[in-house]
Amino acid sequence: MKNPLEILNVDLGERSYPIYIGQGALGEQLILEKYIDSSQVLIVTNETIAPLYLSKFVDQFPERLDVKTSILPDGEIYKTLETLNKIFDALLESRCNRQVTLIALGGGVIGDMTGFAAACYQRGVNFIQIPTTLLSQVDSSVGGKTGVNHRLGKNMIGAFYQPKCVLIDTTVLSTLPDRELSAGLAEVIKYGAICDRQFFEWLEQNMESLLLRDNAALTYAIKTSCKKKAEVVAKDEKESGIRATLNFGHTFGHAIETQMGYGQWLHGEAVAVGMCMAADFSEKLTWLSPEDNARIRALCLKAKLPVMKPQAMVAEDFIKHMKVDKKNVSASIRLILLKTLGEARIYDCTDVALLNEVINRQDQVPS
Amino acid sequence: MKNPLEILNVDLGERSYPIYIGQGALGEQLILEKYIDSSQVLIVTNETIAPLYLSKFVDQFPERLDVKTSILPDGEIYKTLETLNKIFDALLESRCNRQVTLIALGGGVIGDMTGFAAACYQRGVNFIQIPTTLLSQVDSSVGGKTGVNHRLGKNMIGAFYQPKCVLIDTTVLSTLPDRELSAGLAEVIKYGAICDRQFFEWLEQNMESLLLRDNAALTYAIKTSCKKKAEVVAKDEKESGIRATLNFGHTFGHAIETQMGYGQWLHGEAVAVGMCMAADFSEKLTWLSPEDNARIRALCLKAKLPVMKPQAMVAEDFIKHMKVDKKNVSASIRLILLKTLGEARIYDCTDVALLNEVINRQDQVPS
Repeated sequence: MKNPLEILNVDLGERSYPIYIGQGALGEQLILEKYIDSSQVLIVTNETIAPLYLSKFVDQFPERLDVKTSILPDGEIYKTLETLNKIFDALLESRCNRQVTLIALGGGVIGDMTGFAAACYQRGVNFIQIPTTLLSQVDSSVGGKTGVNHRLGKNMIGAFYQPKCVLIDTTVLSTLPDRELSAGLAEVIKYGAICDRQFFEWLEQNMESLLLRDNAALTYAIKTSCKKKAEVVAKDEKESGIRATLNFGHTFGHAIETQMGYGQWLHGEAVAVGMCMAADFSEKLTWLSPEDNARIRALCLKAKLPVMKPQAMVAEDFIKHMKVDKKNVSASIRLILLKTLGEARIYDCTDVALLNEVINRQDQVPS
Repeated sequence: MKNPLEILNVDLGERSYPIYIGQGALGEQLILEKYIDSSQVLIVTNETIAPLYLSKFVDQFPERLDVKTSILPDGEIYKTLETLNKIFDALLESRCNRQVTLIALGGGVIGDMTGFAAACYQRGVNFIQIPTTLLSQVDSSVGGKTGVNHRLGKNMIGAFYQPKCVLIDTTVLSTLPDRELSAGLAEVIKYGAICDRQFFEWLEQNMESLLLRDNAALTYAIKTSCKKKAEVVAKDEKESGIRATLNFGHTFGHAIETQMGYGQWLHGEAVAVGMCMAADFSEKLTWLSPEDNARIRALCLKAKLPVMKPQAMVAEDFIKHMKVDKKNVSASIRLILLKTLGEARIYDCTDVALLNEVINRQDQVPS
C-alpha cells in the first residue's frame, strides 16, 4: 500500500504554497490540476529526464488541457539567457497567454530557469515545480530563488518568484546517478550544520540508509530539510538578513563552480568543500570546536563528497570570485560561518590574509 | 529665475516613489544623491543621448561615488535580451554588488531595459529613472513596467519593478526630434480620452503651444499625464483590472509595431492609429458618439500623428498579432474601448467579423 503524501506549507502570506512529498507524487494528477489556471500548460524538462518520465507524465493530463513541452539540453552550462529564450520561444510559438501554467520537471537548473521564465513571461505567470534530483528537492523547491548564470558569475540574473505548489516524488530518485545523490546530501548536511544539531546527528546515524535510497529515510531527510528552509525563508523572503545563512558553504562553493567552469563540479560537491572551508574558518575564530569541525568533514566523506579544493585553484582565485558574491556589503567579503554545530552566523570578513590561510590549508587536509 | 521642481508622489505602499518635474531637473544632484544607496552607480544611456547630456551629467557626481556608464545602441530593435546582457556585462565587469544603483538616462527603451536589468541583477537592485523623451516622461516613468521584446511579440519578457525616484527635465525636450514629440503626444491624448474629458479639451486648445515646446504647457501636460497614470496604477499595480485601460490604442498599435518591425513606426504613432481604430470600434457599439470619435481623430492629426493603418497591413495581420496580446483571456481578444470621451471600458471581443470590418475601414478614413 502506498503511503499518503506528506504536506508541508511554505508560509509567505499571499505567496504561500504547499509542498507535497512522497512516493508517486508525480502521478497525483488531481493535486496538480488544482494549481493549473487555464487550459494552457507548458512542461519544461531536459534531455535526460524526458525519456525517463515525460511521456507518462504528459499522458495523465485530461484532454481538455492543451499541454505543450519544451525539452532543454541538460547541464549547468546551459543555465543561460540563451537557453531561457528557448522557453520564451516555446511559449510564444504556442501563443500562450498570461493564464498559462509552466511546470518545471527536472533538477535545479530546470527549476531555476523555468521559474525565472515564469517570473518574466508577460511579467509573471503561474508556475509549478516538480524537482527530480535530491538537490533540487531539498533546496530549490523552497525559497523562490530563480535565475540564470552569467559568464562572470553564478545566478547573477534572476528573480524571487514563488511556485503555486511543489510536488516531490521520492521514487524518481531511483534513477538518480550516485554522484548526484551525494551532491544532494551536501545540502541536507548543511541544514543540520546551520540550524539543527539533532538532525545533523540523525544524518550521522542514517547516512548509509540514505545512500541505499531507503524511502523512509529519504522522505524524512527531504521533509526535514524543506521544513528548515521554509522556516528561514518565511522569516526573510528577500534575503535581507537570516536567509543568508542558507548560503553556508556557498560563497567558497560558487568560487569553485565559477573558476572550474559550470558543470565540472556539481553544485553540491562544491558546497561540500565550501562547508569544510567555512567550518575551518569558524574554528580559526574559536567559534566551532575542533571536534565538531572534524564531524562536518567526516559526514561529508561518509556521504561520498569531496572535502578538498581543486588542486588547480589557489587562494587568490577564490578571493577574486568571492568579491563579486551577491551577499557582500561594500568592500568586505560576507561569509556564513558556524558559531557552533547547529547555529550559523553572518561574518563580514576584512582579513584577507586569514582567509588566504584557511583556503590554502584545504590542500593539506587528509581525506 | 528657475521655477522649483514640482513633485508628484506615486502611491504604491512600500514601493511608493516621487516624480520630480521641471526645468533643469537633470542638474539636481542633491535630489539624486538622496536615492543612491552606496558608492556604486551605473548610468545606462544610448548613443543618441550620450553626446548630448552624459558627460555634463556624470561630471556633477561627487568623487566619493564610483560612477560607471554603459552606452547602448539607440532604437526599439535593440530592446532585446542580447542588449540587456550588455548591461549585465557592465555591472559584472565593474564588480557591482547588490547595493549598486542603476540610472536610466534615455527614452522608453533605455528605461524599460535598465529597469528590467535592475529587477534581475542579483534578483533586484536600486533603480532611478531619468526619461528624456516626452513619451517616456508621460508613460514609462509611472507604473514600473519594465522588459524587452521577443521576435514574436513586444514586451513579452519583463517584470513589474518600481524606481526609487524619477527625474523629468522638461528642458531636454528641446533636443527631441519633432516626430518623437508627436509620438509622445499620442500618449498624452490617451489620458484625456480614457479618463479626463476636461484634459482632452485642454489639449484641443493647447496643441499648438505643445508643438512649439512651450515649457509651461509641456510641464502641465506631463504632470497631468503622470498624475492620471499614477492614480490608475495605485489602484491596480499588477494590471489585474482597471490598469488595462491604459492600453487604449495599444492592442492595435502593438500589432502594427510587430508586423512592421520594431522601430519602423514609433510606438506613439502606432498608438495614435490604434486609438482611432478603438474609437471607431467604440462608435460601432454605439458607445462613443460620432462627434467625439471625430474629435479624437482630429486631435491626433493636430498633433501631427498618423491616423491610418499601414497600407501593407490587412485585418488578418492585425488579428494574428492581437491574439497573442498579454491582456487576452482565453480565446477572446481583449480591447480597451471608450464608453464615452473620457471613460474607458474593457471589452472582450469574440466577434472577429466586426473587428475585421473596423480594421479594414481605416484605409478609407480621410486624413
